[in-house]
Amino acid sequence: MKSTNVYYQDYLQLQHILNSQHPESFKDGNKPAHDEMLFIVIHQAYELWFKQILFEVNSAVDIMSQENINDNTPQLQTVVHRLNRVITILKVLVHQIDVMETMTPMDFLEFRDMLRPASGFQSWQFKTLEARLGLQFEERHGKEYYTSQLKQPEVATIKHAEHEKSLLYVVNKWLERMPYFNNTSNWEDFETEARDVHIHPYWSTYRSRYANSLAEAERNNLTIFNEIFIEGKHDGQLTATAKRAALFIMLYRGYPILHLPFELLNNLLEIDEQMSTWRYRHMNMVHRMIGTRIGTGGSTGKDYLKAALDKHYIFKEIAQLTSFLIERSRLPVLPDSLIHHLSFNA
Amino acid sequence: MKSTNVYYQDYLQLQHILNSQHPESFKDGNKPAHDEMLFIVIHQAYELWFKQILFEVNSAVDIMSQENINDNTPQLQTVVHRLNRVITILKVLVHQIDVMETMTPMDFLEFRDMLRPASGFQSWQFKTLEARLGLQFEERHGKEYYTSQLKQPEVATIKHAEHEKSLLYVVNKWLERMPYFNNTSNWEDFETEARDVHIHPYWSTYRSRYANSLAEAERNNLTIFNEIFIEGKHDGQLTATAKRAALFIMLYRGYPILHLPFELLNNLLEIDEQMSTWRYRHMNMVHRMIGTRIGTGGSTGKDYLKAALDKHYIFKEIAQLTSFLIERSRLPVLPDSLIHHLSFNA
Amino acid sequence: MKSTNVYYQDYLQLQHILNSQHPESFKDGNKPAHDEMLFIVIHQAYELWFKQILFEVNSAVDIMSQENINDNTPQLQTVVHRLNRVITILKVLVHQIDVMETMTPMDFLEFRDMLRPASGFQSWQFKTLEARLGLQFEERHGKEYYTSQLKQPEVATIKHAEHEKSLLYVVNKWLERMPYFNNTSNWEDFETEARDVHIHPYWSTYRSRYANSLAEAERNNLTIFNEIFIEGKHDGQLTATAKRAALFIMLYRGYPILHLPFELLNNLLEIDEQMSTWRYRHMNMVHRMIGTRIGTGGSTGKDYLKAALDKHYIFKEIAQLTSFLIERSRLPVLPDSLIHHLSFNA
Amino acid sequence: MKSTNVYYQDYLQLQHILNSQHPESFKDGNKPAHDEMLFIVIHQAYELWFKQILFEVNSAVDIMSQENINDNTPQLQTVVHRLNRVITILKVLVHQIDVMETMTPMDFLEFRDMLRPASGFQSWQFKTLEARLGLQFEERHGKEYYTSQLKQPEVATIKHAEHEKSLLYVVNKWLERMPYFNNTSNWEDFETEARDVHIHPYWSTYRSRYANSLAEAERNNLTIFNEIFIEGKHDGQLTATAKRAALFIMLYRGYPILHLPFELLNNLLEIDEQMSTWRYRHMNMVHRMIGTRIGTGGSTGKDYLKAALDKHYIFKEIAQLTSFLIERSRLPVLPDSLIHHLSFNA
Repeated sequence: MKSTNVYYQDYLQLQHILNSQHPESFKDGNKPAHDEMLFIVIHQAYELWFKQILFEVNSAVDIMSQENINDNTPQLQTVVHRLNRVITILKVLVHQIDVMETMTPMDFLEFRDMLRPASGFQSWQFKTLEARLGLQFEERHGKEYYTSQLKQPEVATIKHAEHEKSLLYVVNKWLERMPYFNNTSNWEDFETEARDVHIHPYWSTYRSRYANSLAEAERNNLTIFNEIFIEGKHDGQLTATAKRAALFIMLYRGYPILHLPFELLNNLLEIDEQMSTWRYRHMNMVHRMIGTRIGTGGSTGKDYLKAALDKHYIFKEIAQLTSFLIERSRLPVLPDSLIHHLSFNA
Repeated sequence: MKSTNVYYQDYLQLQHILNSQHPESFKDGNKPAHDEMLFIVIHQAYELWFKQILFEVNSAVDIMSQENINDNTPQLQTVVHRLNRVITILKVLVHQIDVMETMTPMDFLEFRDMLRPASGFQSWQFKTLEARLGLQFEERHGKEYYTSQLKQPEVATIKHAEHEKSLLYVVNKWLERMPYFNNTSNWEDFETEARDVHIHPYWSTYRSRYANSLAEAERNNLTIFNEIFIEGKHDGQLTATAKRAALFIMLYRGYPILHLPFELLNNLLEIDEQMSTWRYRHMNMVHRMIGTRIGTGGSTGKDYLKAALDKHYIFKEIAQLTSFLIERSRLPVLPDSLIHHLSFNA
Repeated sequence: MKSTNVYYQDYLQLQHILNSQHPESFKDGNKPAHDEMLFIVIHQAYELWFKQILFEVNSAVDIMSQENINDNTPQLQTVVHRLNRVITILKVLVHQIDVMETMTPMDFLEFRDMLRPASGFQSWQFKTLEARLGLQFEERHGKEYYTSQLKQPEVATIKHAEHEKSLLYVVNKWLERMPYFNNTSNWEDFETEARDVHIHPYWSTYRSRYANSLAEAERNNLTIFNEIFIEGKHDGQLTATAKRAALFIMLYRGYPILHLPFELLNNLLEIDEQMSTWRYRHMNMVHRMIGTRIGTGGSTGKDYLKAALDKHYIFKEIAQLTSFLIERSRLPVLPDSLIHHLSFNA
Repeated sequence: MKSTNVYYQDYLQLQHILNSQHPESFKDGNKPAHDEMLFIVIHQAYELWFKQILFEVNSAVDIMSQENINDNTPQLQTVVHRLNRVITILKVLVHQIDVMETMTPMDFLEFRDMLRPASGFQSWQFKTLEARLGLQFEERHGKEYYTSQLKQPEVATIKHAEHEKSLLYVVNKWLERMPYFNNTSNWEDFETEARDVHIHPYWSTYRSRYANSLAEAERNNLTIFNEIFIEGKHDGQLTATAKRAALFIMLYRGYPILHLPFELLNNLLEIDEQMSTWRYRHMNMVHRMIGTRIGTGGSTGKDYLKAALDKHYIFKEIAQLTSFLIERSRLPVLPDSLIHHLSFNA
């Protein structure tokens, strides 16, 4: 047990935090550009929050990496709770763009040239975050770009993150482990429609109901359904098995044991949406700030951001599942023996 | 002077406002879908606010339509203030998407089929708003689409709005009227650089300074500068004359008489940004709700919204000017005789 | 199944929604006050949303009113989800105050006198909402005030709501039904500390741990603990039994079956917080608008709102429980037989 | 001109910013409390932003401290713009409370005891900010409290700030310098009502119109009007002369030269409102976190925050002026000779 007193300034190490702002334009021989201070502080605030988000995401990956997550422990609650926190922080980061927008283009031009080639693209924490969530090197826009822009230790950090198990990776493993389909005793009483020996009776039945729910113009969706869930043609970081499990969770979230898994999937989508909104507003802000001129990093920021915006959806394979839902009232009824496993003890 | 008492319920006509929610799924023979009430209420809230925005935009157009706006009256202040209000409302409308997102895809599927072919695309108020701001029929994504979706009186309303003077139209006229360049006596003392008989000494000078400010990779911007400001090659709804006036306002906003004009231009950009953010979040929401399935209006909402997102920037010609700013410290010094006209009486 | 087509304008009854704005100042003989339109539209938007909130709260009360809520059905999820929606809407309503604040005091004075004695205090929907959540007549600030301000049918509506079962009432009943303590077989293996024949071994143990956690200056909290949880001295709308159940839920939320109950309690606190934030910002806005002058309703709005702010915390008995938590690591360990009932089937 | 390259990590000094988080509970012999990291990061983010706000407020004070602010320079625009930035930052700080609220009371209890007596009350930057804006030592809640809590150098910093010219101080001087009333030639054509030899004809006239605008229940306001504007009975940090100038600015903001002064006054009120909203949400958050238990600083945080909330309105003398406005249509007409000085050159 600690015995010494803790003091606010020391505890927060404010001597470091508050003495790390040294605008280039304030240095000898330059003309001080008032707004450079804001430019520094807001980027530092972003980096502080990136550190916190990484801390939360790492802890979520750690928990999800276990061979077996016991639904009777608070582990999944903890993961959902921490991802919720990540979402809350991301919303603040989106909001922070309002502050950046109080800097006008002409105010920025006053110090832009002094900063070259420093650039927000050099945030290794942000790239590490993308990697930890599940963005793979091959999916990155401007793959080689960051390696040329960053110093060696930072490239190494990102590369390391890309080779570790990502959140998406462990989510896939966790989905694949979902036990309900393999145990045939769960399904003895299931009323199968559209029997198909090659696939599980549940999925032949569901496919049939899905087909019936399609409007004329949506007919093509059935082919895609088969490709995704049966043939595994579109396997990316999620396998067909994992996608079926995720769809099942979405469909039967009303059963107690599937409630938290559904929240988890939903949080992943929300993280993507907030990051995409951040990129979108960031892109607009950059466009408003420099137009078609060149950012400090040597590219027209807008183009990079727009491309990243379209490509960097990390959980798109989960988002895609929405297209394959049907109305709740038409869901296949689950057999009692399975329901037992989705429920609380009496 | 009124003598009778006013009563809250009657004043707000709540008997109409609160009795206009009749979910299709609540009708005889249907299965009530709880979330349809939300679907109705939120769309009604949007339409109420669209009415208010139109009211403000119309009043702004009316004021700006005058032959002459006296800078010594509060007229321009009023326009800026009302456009600020429009921006504030748009931010609430963006926020409201959070409420829509509390409806899950499966909840939506419960009543989607009953609504066909009603669709948000049929909001004639929103289309009228776009037209009043300055979106022209030819620039619309899916031009013919709305005429086929709407009833005749509503098409007529939008067509009418498209033929009236829009906010962008009257802003162009107002910019073109800016008096400072035509009066040669304002410029007698001006120190001209890079004299060019074909263009005003101020702009030959500014062009020279702009050219000097360009980084290597930005050289091409000079050609575009000439095309936009001198040759008028890119004249859209703003003429080269108006664009020069707008750029001048941005550059010299520090002078008292240009402060409000600058705020006005800035508000137009902010309106575009908020509307674009709204479309962006709306698009993501629709994607999350129906994926690649078909919306009630018979199209995959996301595709329409994405195309509109990219095409419906109404004030893009103003946004573009940012690319042609230079640092404040390198601005050409204005002659005293001109400064006099930009200043308050002693 | 419906066969007719639905049309957006008709579906949303826009002919009613959009034709219900008739500013007093626009009427014959008056001088039009531009901002009165905003005043009407924003109040209508508030009333639309109050209707939606009431719809959600009523549905939550209906579900919670059942004799028995089966944890193995989605009922509790539905309640939590709908209260989440209420919170999301309340956040938009707080944000909407930004729009009202674009009206300046002088703009308001232009039409204030024409509105007397109409006033926001006459919103029967808001008062009904407070009653449905659990605010009792005796706890209201300005009890008799609203009956004198409202017409008879509206008073009757609110009175009716006050006599129905409120959300707080059904939550109390639901908490009182929590089965774990009554069944002695659950507790056979429990390691009791500080045995006290008058109270359940769990609570004698917890009280002892709580006492040990108190800092010197907090000693008095033990007396309050006894009064609230044991002696029932502070019974308000929640009984001591219900409060113990709520505290137990907070403490052991990590067990699966207590997760949703915890979310439910948390949502109630969040509703109170958002409503209080709304009152707070509303109060500031009114103060900024009219200062110490008299509102249209005949009182200085700020005083009423400030008093209501302090008194109208509806779920304060739940909020209070926070004072009686201890660290997770010091929680009494639950016996296996009880844990079985808090868990999923194997 | 600089020649060396700037690198993002170095420019932002991320080696300091990102290595200054050392949770007590992570130290040897303690049990790591996951949420302590958030606790540190969020307080660091607050302190970063406080530094930025102080930077902006100091620059505003510097500009306003000049003997004479030339309305024909961008100085006042700059002040208004920077205070707008302060407001935008404060809104983010309010929003950040959402992040803190993702920490539950039990999570906080896990490390609370290790932090004593460190406390947010020890933020010398926040207290310095209050002082720079204009909060005087005598007006502080818990005057002596902070001197006992802080180390000597920090107390000295705050004391120093309290003895410097505050923003409110320089605003008062600036208002007192408003030239229009002293020059009798401005008023020769003014139509005086209710002549009173002791006061300026404008104010006798305005007082008469104000008296006529009062509702029965507002009669007492006339006495207060006299006390504030004529007798100077309520002189605090603003003198009667300054208050009359501020009221004049509010009333005639439609004239060009008064537009920015009005924006300035409005920004001061908005700063107060945002700081008060921050205190309010902070107070609620603390209450939800520790209830009636004792914070790390040794007091029940809620009580301090509530008292500060009510007392620390810094610009209340300006807020108060709202009570003394009248409708625009009843404003005394200004004489042409004065209007000339409020207008742009022809």
